[in-house]
Amino acid sequence: MNSKANPACSSPVLDYLEHLHREFAGVKEGKVATYIPELAKANPDWFGICLVTTNGTAYEVGDSRQPFTIQSISKPFVYGMALEDHGRQHVISKVGMEPTGDAFNSISLEPGTGRPRNPMINAGAIASTSLIEGKNGPARLRRLLEMFGRYAGRDLRLDQPIYTSENETGHRNRAIGHMLRNFDILTSDPIPSVELYFQQCSVSVTAYDLGVMAATLANRGVNPITGKQAIRGEYVESVLSVMSSCGMYDYAGEWLYTIGMPAKSGVAGGLIAVLPGQLGIAVFSPPLDARGNSVRGIRVCDAISRHCDLHLLNRPSTGQSAIRLKFTGAELTSNRIRTAEESRVLHEEGGRIQVYQLQGNLHFASAESVVHDVIANAERIGHLILDFKKVLTLNESACRLFYEVLSKLSGRGCVLLFTHTEHLPLLRRYMKVKLGERYATLFRAVQENDLALEWSENRVIEAALPPRQNDGPAGPGEYELFENFTPTEIKVIESLLQRRTYPQTTAIINAGDEPREIFFLASGGVSVFVPLESGGRKRLATFTRGMVFGEMAAIDRAPRSAMIEADSEVVCDVMSLEEFDRLGITQPGIKIKLLENLCLCLSRRLRTVNRKLAVFD
Amino acid sequence: MNSKANPACSSPVLDYLEHLHREFAGVKEGKVATYIPELAKANPDWFGICLVTTNGTAYEVGDSRQPFTIQSISKPFVYGMALEDHGRQHVISKVGMEPTGDAFNSISLEPGTGRPRNPMINAGAIASTSLIEGKNGPARLRRLLEMFGRYAGRDLRLDQPIYTSENETGHRNRAIGHMLRNFDILTSDPIPSVELYFQQCSVSVTAYDLGVMAATLANRGVNPITGKQAIRGEYVESVLSVMSSCGMYDYAGEWLYTIGMPAKSGVAGGLIAVLPGQLGIAVFSPPLDARGNSVRGIRVCDAISRHCDLHLLNRPSTGQSAIRLKFTGAELTSNRIRTAEESRVLHEEGGRIQVYQLQGNLHFASAESVVHDVIANAERIGHLILDFKKVLTLNESACRLFYEVLSKLSGRGCVLLFTHTEHLPLLRRYMKVKLGERYATLFRAVQENDLALEWSENRVIEAALPPRQNDGPAGPGEYELFENFTPTEIKVIESLLQRRTYPQTTAIINAGDEPREIFFLASGGVSVFVPLESGGRKRLATFTRGMVFGEMAAIDRAPRSAMIEADSEVVCDVMSLEEFDRLGITQPGIKIKLLENLCLCLSRRLRTVNRKLAVFD
Repeated sequence: MNSKANPACSSPVLDYLEHLHREFAGVKEGKVATYIPELAKANPDWFGICLVTTNGTAYEVGDSRQPFTIQSISKPFVYGMALEDHGRQHVISKVGMEPTGDAFNSISLEPGTGRPRNPMINAGAIASTSLIEGKNGPARLRRLLEMFGRYAGRDLRLDQPIYTSENETGHRNRAIGHMLRNFDILTSDPIPSVELYFQQCSVSVTAYDLGVMAATLANRGVNPITGKQAIRGEYVESVLSVMSSCGMYDYAGEWLYTIGMPAKSGVAGGLIAVLPGQLGIAVFSPPLDARGNSVRGIRVCDAISRHCDLHLLNRPSTGQSAIRLKFTGAELTSNRIRTAEESRVLHEEGGRIQVYQLQGNLHFASAESVVHDVIANAERIGHLILDFKKVLTLNESACRLFYEVLSKLSGRGCVLLFTHTEHLPLLRRYMKVKLGERYATLFRAVQENDLALEWSENRVIEAALPPRQNDGPAGPGEYELFENFTPTEIKVIESLLQRRTYPQTTAIINAGDEPREIFFLASGGVSVFVPLESGGRKRLATFTRGMVFGEMAAIDRAPRSAMIEADSEVVCDVMSLEEFDRLGITQPGIKIKLLENLCLCLSRRLRTVNRKLAVFD
Repeated sequence: MNSKANPACSSPVLDYLEHLHREFAGVKEGKVATYIPELAKANPDWFGICLVTTNGTAYEVGDSRQPFTIQSISKPFVYGMALEDHGRQHVISKVGMEPTGDAFNSISLEPGTGRPRNPMINAGAIASTSLIEGKNGPARLRRLLEMFGRYAGRDLRLDQPIYTSENETGHRNRAIGHMLRNFDILTSDPIPSVELYFQQCSVSVTAYDLGVMAATLANRGVNPITGKQAIRGEYVESVLSVMSSCGMYDYAGEWLYTIGMPAKSGVAGGLIAVLPGQLGIAVFSPPLDARGNSVRGIRVCDAISRHCDLHLLNRPSTGQSAIRLKFTGAELTSNRIRTAEESRVLHEEGGRIQVYQLQGNLHFASAESVVHDVIANAERIGHLILDFKKVLTLNESACRLFYEVLSKLSGRGCVLLFTHTEHLPLLRRYMKVKLGERYATLFRAVQENDLALEWSENRVIEAALPPRQNDGPAGPGEYELFENFTPTEIKVIESLLQRRTYPQTTAIINAGDEPREIFFLASGGVSVFVPLESGGRKRLATFTRGMVFGEMAAIDRAPRSAMIEADSEVVCDVMSLEEFDRLGITQPGIKIKLLENLCLCLSRRLRTVNRKLAVFD
């Protein structure tokens, strides 16, 4: 997924990052941190940028693979783990979430409670670290490293010299630890937690790692490259909230105003910014400004945000973009081939079948736009088909809206069908819980849209037409190709036909077969299938009593292009191609009539398919 | 658009708001503001909720039409107007954007500069108001009221008793005015600005109005009901930023953490919350908590945010949802009917024509997902068609990415076509500026996708096939329906044909005409059109030299279903239906051959259309 990999044509995003790198490499402001001796060894010219999208595309330039220590950028990740270990309520009782307007190393405890104001200052970070579970120091460190590893998509290790240096000089943080113990924010010996805090700050990362870690936060906690969950999605908003309001220390308000992305910096020169749902950015450049933020890091984030319009609060309306396509059963019919009479019914009554193909992320606002449209048309809808094939995600509030629609419309006698919901287990679970006993009857999950449409059409047709009197096998006079034939002509045809019976699921025709016959369906149904690339197969058409199939090959004499299978027990009358050819010589008038009927039949199907095609335009 | 209007079936969103209203109506905590006598007259039981989506759907319950004064909720709107009047830089020099952690009436001026910390505290709001342009007090008030009116979608007025009361008791605010004058934040007599500030706070609104105003901020400054721009889109992010970091006074961090939407409250009991791109919420309930925020307002926002998962920072990945459909010229062809040889070329070489149908909002991340895909396939692409028909919005950073793709791929000899771009003038403007002289040759904007596809196909076919030797009119032996005819059979057919010439744009067939003839194209091209509901017309097919058209009606004898027009000067050979019918009697063998060819032709077209349909699945 590394964008450096495509030599044929470079990405404009990569070009752009290279341009930024050239532009800001010349910036010589800021000072490398010296508060611990090891950090002071950093080369001030190191400069790497990495941008990773939630689709898992990584763009990186400069020293993006130069290791350095994560430092304070560890704080939001460890805070997230504390939330996972203890839940929001307990964590909030130990650490607040109000910005302080103070510097990174301020102690800022709430008067009275002693609760650190937020988890981004050292006091709050140490309190968060103290909440990490584990039976002893090494076990806790291992859990922390595993967590960082899930975010980065590779095993991360400590930079031992930095850790030693931190540990030797961290008197202020030890003081903070004892102060937290004094207020019972820490309830046992603070020193192990302070040491774990030094260890978390000493994790060695690269700008590439941080880019992936930021993108994981942007992707609701799922590493977009490995696909692995690094933190439960429900806690991501809390991590990003404290980054937004407190991540850049006393610069938070201006940062949100001008750059508009949750962010976090570290004294080794790292900086991450997160645009939820879209991308993560990491910059590494050791020289820091007076507030302890990487100078080039801030310049790069500011430039990217402005040039690429990434401000979190600058969002265009999602509009009705959740509705990919909307049509009625009068506009687009299923792949079941209908008789002329059935077609007329669907043309007249199919408008009561309403199909919505949904797409994208269904959350409250996008689901609302669908539900609003459904409710506005409720009086007209008899069958509602909601197709989730192109839906990427679905949250509980969207489920609730669809449940309410199901509940309301069912109450009005409308039937709802949900198709392609396999990848959205939440929908079924939600419906099961809410519907209880009614689940089995009310929640109709159908695998394919076409089947849901056919089923709805059948109900509409059943309601409109009298039940078929004759359920026995059709005779030649009832076949569509001989509709206008005289009894004498029918007799001729009858003599050329041979009756055959096929059990259900027989492959009557296989793709690639040499054509030898034309089939007339006396009873039962057959379907035409083509294999799908994704495995499985797709139904192209279903034929029923009275219809002809396998007739194409009689014309072009090419090998069969698709497989035709018996949907039920099937009775067919079969005409061999020899008889078909001979008919032109012995009975040219009948042959002409037959061919004209075939043309009519094909042109009718062509019109139907053309009408379907227009729906997609 | 008011959701109360549909009696047939209530909306689940409305039901939900009613449920919340019932739940929180019983909350009796909080105190009505009494700091000015008029406010103290409010009924503590008043309680209205309004939710408005960026699609312009409004849901309202309870006392949503009860007037009250806007108070501090005016601050972000006036701040936005100050930005419009003076630009960001000047405004920032007068008012900061850092949260104070202090209460609403704190003075909080920066030490040294005297700049108010942010525009949500009174000092910052008065400084913002002082920036409103106008030749005198009434003119400035009129501009303010017009601005509020654009947001609300109706004329708003002052509540005079409240204004009088504010003015009589506003000593603290007058003190702030003089303090700002002292620091030269205000550069003239502060009293007119303080009075204008009292006036803006006294504007009478309802929860419904505030809901629409909040939705306007959510909709990048466009009122979603009237469609009118209330504030330039570029300033909305700044308004929402100060609401996010400072809108709820000393509760801002917790508000962002738990509720996660930019918000603003007023002492009359109003509260708005904005979810950018999605919706605005307004609550009205006069009893306030100790921080001056409406108690029920906070409860309702908290409940809606939790139940509907509205936290700003909780966003699913947009994924590749900008790509609605992607196909090559080998998978789906234009509506130009091709000869067998041309079809073979397109089957083999059409893969070098790549079509992307784009959708939704194209910003940096969504455009990146498209561009990434294009670049990854760059080696294979000879023609790239980007279809913007379903694109809702497009920003400059997306334009830049498309420009870069155009520039890079053109350099590799690839041709790019942009279709359906009329509703996105920014794209053309951007390309014009960037391409300069090359605009005319490189930026190919084509109105319809089908035309772009046909044009690309023509280039591919031209490159693959030798130029046509014979440009003269075809003779009967060259028509597809008589391909396998013997010279004797051709002679018979020839005697039945009548040659006709039609000038360009002649309607050769009109919809509704009784069918009388079958047409064979000797030279030129004709297209089949159907009218569109939206006005205009759509091309269904184009036929060229050697093809048959108008043959359907020879079979079904139904009135013509579409209009067929000459694309150029056209020479046709025409067979009357009388001759067609007579042929079955005089030359049955020839008639059979003709009908078999017609079946072949129809079944070939049916297969093509079926293949097209599969692309949309």
